[in-house]
Amino acid sequence: MRRLRMGMIGGGPGSFIGPVHRIAAELDREIELVAGAFSSDPQRSRRAGMDYRIDPARAYTDVAAMLDGERAREDGIDFVAIVTPNHHHLPAARAALAAGLPVMSDKPATATYEEALELARLVRASGLPYGLTHTYSGYPLVREARARVVAGALGKVRKVVVEYPQGWLAGAASGKQAEWRVDPARSGEGGCIGDIGTHAFQLAEFITGLKVTELFADLGVVGAGRVLDDDCSVLLRFDNGARGVLLASQIEVGELNGLRIRVYGDKGGLRWRQERPNTLAIDTIDGRTEIVHASGAGLGPDARARTRTPPGHPEGYLEAFANLYRDFAAILRGEAAPLLPGIDTGVRGMAFIATAVAASRNGSGWVKLDI
Amino acid sequence: MRRLRMGMIGGGPGSFIGPVHRIAAELDREIELVAGAFSSDPQRSRRAGMDYRIDPARAYTDVAAMLDGERAREDGIDFVAIVTPNHHHLPAARAALAAGLPVMSDKPATATYEEALELARLVRASGLPYGLTHTYSGYPLVREARARVVAGALGKVRKVVVEYPQGWLAGAASGKQAEWRVDPARSGEGGCIGDIGTHAFQLAEFITGLKVTELFADLGVVGAGRVLDDDCSVLLRFDNGARGVLLASQIEVGELNGLRIRVYGDKGGLRWRQERPNTLAIDTIDGRTEIVHASGAGLGPDARARTRTPPGHPEGYLEAFANLYRDFAAILRGEAAPLLPGIDTGVRGMAFIATAVAASRNGSGWVKLDI
Amino acid sequence: MRRLRMGMIGGGPGSFIGPVHRIAAELDREIELVAGAFSSDPQRSRRAGMDYRIDPARAYTDVAAMLDGERAREDGIDFVAIVTPNHHHLPAARAALAAGLPVMSDKPATATYEEALELARLVRASGLPYGLTHTYSGYPLVREARARVVAGALGKVRKVVVEYPQGWLAGAASGKQAEWRVDPARSGEGGCIGDIGTHAFQLAEFITGLKVTELFADLGVVGAGRVLDDDCSVLLRFDNGARGVLLASQIEVGELNGLRIRVYGDKGGLRWRQERPNTLAIDTIDGRTEIVHASGAGLGPDARARTRTPPGHPEGYLEAFANLYRDFAAILRGEAAPLLPGIDTGVRGMAFIATAVAASRNGSGWVKLDI
Amino acid sequence: MRRLRMGMIGGGPGSFIGPVHRIAAELDREIELVAGAFSSDPQRSRRAGMDYRIDPARAYTDVAAMLDGERAREDGIDFVAIVTPNHHHLPAARAALAAGLPVMSDKPATATYEEALELARLVRASGLPYGLTHTYSGYPLVREARARVVAGALGKVRKVVVEYPQGWLAGAASGKQAEWRVDPARSGEGGCIGDIGTHAFQLAEFITGLKVTELFADLGVVGAGRVLDDDCSVLLRFDNGARGVLLASQIEVGELNGLRIRVYGDKGGLRWRQERPNTLAIDTIDGRTEIVHASGAGLGPDARARTRTPPGHPEGYLEAFANLYRDFAAILRGEAAPLLPGIDTGVRGMAFIATAVAASRNGSGWVKLDI
Repeated sequence: MRRLRMGMIGGGPGSFIGPVHRIAAELDREIELVAGAFSSDPQRSRRAGMDYRIDPARAYTDVAAMLDGERAREDGIDFVAIVTPNHHHLPAARAALAAGLPVMSDKPATATYEEALELARLVRASGLPYGLTHTYSGYPLVREARARVVAGALGKVRKVVVEYPQGWLAGAASGKQAEWRVDPARSGEGGCIGDIGTHAFQLAEFITGLKVTELFADLGVVGAGRVLDDDCSVLLRFDNGARGVLLASQIEVGELNGLRIRVYGDKGGLRWRQERPNTLAIDTIDGRTEIVHASGAGLGPDARARTRTPPGHPEGYLEAFANLYRDFAAILRGEAAPLLPGIDTGVRGMAFIATAVAASRNGSGWVKLDI
Repeated sequence: MRRLRMGMIGGGPGSFIGPVHRIAAELDREIELVAGAFSSDPQRSRRAGMDYRIDPARAYTDVAAMLDGERAREDGIDFVAIVTPNHHHLPAARAALAAGLPVMSDKPATATYEEALELARLVRASGLPYGLTHTYSGYPLVREARARVVAGALGKVRKVVVEYPQGWLAGAASGKQAEWRVDPARSGEGGCIGDIGTHAFQLAEFITGLKVTELFADLGVVGAGRVLDDDCSVLLRFDNGARGVLLASQIEVGELNGLRIRVYGDKGGLRWRQERPNTLAIDTIDGRTEIVHASGAGLGPDARARTRTPPGHPEGYLEAFANLYRDFAAILRGEAAPLLPGIDTGVRGMAFIATAVAASRNGSGWVKLDI
Repeated sequence: MRRLRMGMIGGGPGSFIGPVHRIAAELDREIELVAGAFSSDPQRSRRAGMDYRIDPARAYTDVAAMLDGERAREDGIDFVAIVTPNHHHLPAARAALAAGLPVMSDKPATATYEEALELARLVRASGLPYGLTHTYSGYPLVREARARVVAGALGKVRKVVVEYPQGWLAGAASGKQAEWRVDPARSGEGGCIGDIGTHAFQLAEFITGLKVTELFADLGVVGAGRVLDDDCSVLLRFDNGARGVLLASQIEVGELNGLRIRVYGDKGGLRWRQERPNTLAIDTIDGRTEIVHASGAGLGPDARARTRTPPGHPEGYLEAFANLYRDFAAILRGEAAPLLPGIDTGVRGMAFIATAVAASRNGSGWVKLDI
Repeated sequence: MRRLRMGMIGGGPGSFIGPVHRIAAELDREIELVAGAFSSDPQRSRRAGMDYRIDPARAYTDVAAMLDGERAREDGIDFVAIVTPNHHHLPAARAALAAGLPVMSDKPATATYEEALELARLVRASGLPYGLTHTYSGYPLVREARARVVAGALGKVRKVVVEYPQGWLAGAASGKQAEWRVDPARSGEGGCIGDIGTHAFQLAEFITGLKVTELFADLGVVGAGRVLDDDCSVLLRFDNGARGVLLASQIEVGELNGLRIRVYGDKGGLRWRQERPNTLAIDTIDGRTEIVHASGAGLGPDARARTRTPPGHPEGYLEAFANLYRDFAAILRGEAAPLLPGIDTGVRGMAFIATAVAASRNGSGWVKLDI
């Protein structure tokens, strides 16, 4: 079986997420990066091509050129990975789909909710695979958590607390990573709520199998001179009546990438945190606490299939990301990978951003998440 | 210097908090329990007197009898400790103050905000010392946290997250401790928000030195057949503009007594959790993390004075509680102990409960905390 | 039931362990400190009496005076607590036993193994209760660990690793606590091995119910100008053939009071550490990990009876110490408390010190622990 | 710059370490796996080639065939990676060196000390690069630990405690991974001491920059029917006089891959554990504790260059392994990578095994590590 060929859109010099997609895609050797429209600046795109060690002829300066160039080759790309700032997501995906290529996109799906609806129409019309890299749902123990909750191990879910604290924007937003995130023209109407709040939102729905139906949002703009939110508190209601709390912040000094989630049902609870991803705590109402180990005993098939080393050998962010690409490759091969986030997740995420931003701005109290 | 003599109101057989007050009061040998109106049931009060190993003649069945009996003795009590369910707090305190006795009271101060206002008038009119046992502000590293925040170590405070998860009321509320807490006649209008939410509220104001001015509340009633809240999410605004999140729940299966707080300023952050109370993490905006140890190096005078053993010898809940009695004893001796929570804290706590309950009931959005 | 009356030997101003014994003895209100031979310096003994808030007439300057003075009182002491440096343990205990008084002694039992044998003869001849405060065996979860191991939860024990790292003597040994510990005239022939190595030794035998039969010792003298060991590595064999490792050091910079133990059998393993004493990890050979909580579900009667607060309310060093006094009080009342360390434990501890010191000095390889 | 081409020796179906080498080598895209002598069984080698997705024509059944076949190609391999059981290490390396190819070898270097000496002669005679994958020295914070110790941050090193507990051989040694490890014909004379003890030994020397000069060993054979050690306790002396303790076990039920190290000097100490590799604790003699974060502030250049994501994005075992391949690739490009373990480390590791095994067998007390 040959490796699938990936063309990257975005990911030029200084990109954080471009190399992450490259490593993740290639980790299991099912996919290889062969081409890219890394930057509209020819010199920067060439430089990126060299950094990625691809054929210099396949480092393009725009998406159309890449799609044309690759279509002309026998060994042309099989799909695109979109790793640009948010405002390029829709045009890039539209072009790829039009060229008949599946899309693996960084999150959020688009820059606005309206764009997401358009993208959803395009994806459905194309019949092509579309994946959205909500990284954290690729962690083996997140898969295990979901499997257990859905199987009823916690009983009826009554409460979800999901938090995503970061501190890296507590001071000035300088540097390539920070600058576009605080710029509404490139980021969309959500700041922190879009950048990491959507991860928390997706994780909560992913693990519980529930849908948020209503929310109350308090989005703060703390950093001097900013216009987009950087500190978000959102209260949630789920479709089974459960309550939820979603906290995301980028001004909490000292917090690194502290995504964590706790889910409580009427029979049990669970706790997981991204910074120590290889254990999952399960509590039962009779007062017992069990620690589940990644790659260890008692795991379901999904978690078991998503580690590469025995217990005690830490796997982390890149491996979780690679698990999403593993799912995507399976889909491209015609297999099922129902847990890979797709366009529906993308639309829900954009609805979440839009609703939270509007609700916070209007001080309108509880608002339906209509979708 | 003789030991101060304490008379307890409440704390009969099966009480959790009565023995805690006894141990805490006596730990530093400045105070001794000598009398009590432990129960209105004579047999139960006698039984409690035996359990506490006090003179059987000093185990009374009502407050008035204790106050009269003790006034008649040369070695009569110097103050009362109130450890009853909430609805008895005001009458017990009123009687003690009327008898000229200082009061150390369990929290919350009273059953309702109106009662708290009355109690505040009585305390002020009496000129007598009044202490409120917000236990967690007695921990040495909580004192250290406050000292550092107030001294500006974090810069301007911008965000506070305080959480108090418990799980012991996830199932049926059975047993002496649970029953009165879910009964509005004995607990007041707040359930979880009064029982533990007030601790979280007090801790946040204590450490930051800020005051909450506005809140949004979502109080849930989750346990079957309950009328009082058992799951609370409250968003806060402080008087310096900082945002806050206060979560308290008693239905989060597996959570024990998980009070924890994180405070973030524009220069640093701190993290503390009650279940591992002997370390305090301090983060600075330059990316450094320091772990401060109870009884260890670099502590200010307040924290230093509130441990009894060298670093590495865990001190816990009882020692923290004892630190409040140490402060109270100092006040009785005429010394200053400005950090002991008093009636003002009590009134603020009751205002918090009343405001949160009303706000949640009315779905009234953001509400001022008027006090 | 009246409180038992304790007379303290040692524990003058600046003592760490004197106040610890006082707090521990009184915590459950079964015992009260009423007298003491705190110091041979009259002014210091008086000062200590004031600090402890006892009757000034009962602050004596020597043991004989205290024993005489107390014998003459109707409310004289019921037992003595010995909290002096090691070289006073035997004479103090001898005098107390001769006066017909039970003894609760700090560890190690004596300054030398020969003294321990003499003390054992005296204790047996007297028929009086004798307790040895190996603090750490008073922790509820240490009791639970022992109960589970003895009941076979781990299968046949095959390996024990017990460590006691401290760092407070990494620099100069200055201050009252340090000075006598590095002085063979007051400490005996063992330094670190006697001060904390014996705790580790006792803990290993206590939890496993096994006896050490052979050892190899490497005792280092690291601090400048010292003559006694301050860094100890000892390999062990137990009477069932199990291997063991015992590490104790007082020069490991940054270590506080890091006693910890791991026990492995052919069916399971357990892990406990003193600095986080309220959880116990149990691993089973099928790959499962359970966290047991102090005061929580699934505990045996011994652990259950040795906490004073619900789960999540940290109890620590003082409460563990108090559990030993609770056992001692039970014995004085004529009840059984078989797990309180006594003179046999004391003799074994001194044999351990003497054997380790000799073995290390001679480079004699593996040596029998003959006793 | 083209990618370096790797030929693998070993790593057939069921191999744990073969895929690890493949992922690690390719992670930074400087190397790609293109050929392999995966198994002497043609069907199994072909199967492995398919699993790795390489050209079927380049899945060979013996080393000679691979070396010949690749030499004949324009795009032939640039180096070999040896991932077989230990007894194949020397012949495989010998053949590769004879063919003029650099070698990256799994540890230990060979099956016996004599073989290691021979291999050292061959490597030196060839002038070719030789790397040894002591994985754990590839962790960024291990590099940081070494940099700080060597720069004197801890003062003079006085004590090292390195532990490597595992539990996976507590029961029967079944399965491909277990079987060859307990077989002296394939593993060599050391069991646990060779498999993981050498990692611990290398880590201790790597971080401290010191050399072990003497040791005392107690190697146990615990598992039923075994002939090789599975539980090892070794006491160490370093060339600066420091003491050390090295514990390695494969029968400690519940331990996963618990490698950890603590180093103490006269000015500070440090603590690191493989299962939580992204933090490093630094203690100073003035009582301060600092937590250093992988990819965070205050790191030296070596650690900084060996992470791929921002702080809070866990990197683990595979990324550490990849750091060794990054060093190896640098060497192949003619750059310096002095911290990559090489043949000298290999010889020292084999001397350690041989000395420990002999010392333990003879009960010969302290033994020089002569090399």
